[in-house]
Amino acid sequence: MKARIHVTLKNGVLDPQGKAIGHALAALGFAGVNDVRQGKFIEIDLTETDAKKAEANVKAMCQKLLANTVIENYSVEIVG
Amino acid sequence: MKARIHVTLKNGVLDPQGKAIGHALAALGFAGVNDVRQGKFIEIDLTETDAKKAEANVKAMCQKLLANTVIENYSVEIVG
Repeated sequence: MKARIHVTLKNGVLDPQGKAIGHALAALGFAGVNDVRQGKFIEIDLTETDAKKAEANVKAMCQKLLANTVIENYSVEIVG
Repeated sequence: MKARIHVTLKNGVLDPQGKAIGHALAALGFAGVNDVRQGKFIEIDLTETDAKKAEANVKAMCQKLLANTVIENYSVEIVG
């Protein structure tokens, strides 16, 4: 089965990449953009067939490697 | 309203970042990982209140700036 993981900066953490995108959009003439935040999206293809075990496993991956939990939040979604 | 955008590499395009994550997970002892692909996740806060207009606007942003459509796919989701 597949896991879809979103890793995003916590609220209040400065996001220079998002700010850069916001400025670039303004420079290109796109109006009406209040705020931009950029995060990571990771798709993992797992051999595990039990959704609960897969979710626990992927959460452990997030804690250990994929997210810096001091400044980032993560969410895990198990699909098909 | 808010737009949630996923930018992912097209199938067949080499993803060194995903490969590096896969190797790091294996080194940490996580078994059963077949494949890892990393993409970008962008959240944009818009002043636009019409969902259809917002979607069209965000798709134009993806075409012009956020995604390299030669090697990347994008998907746009308008929320609340």
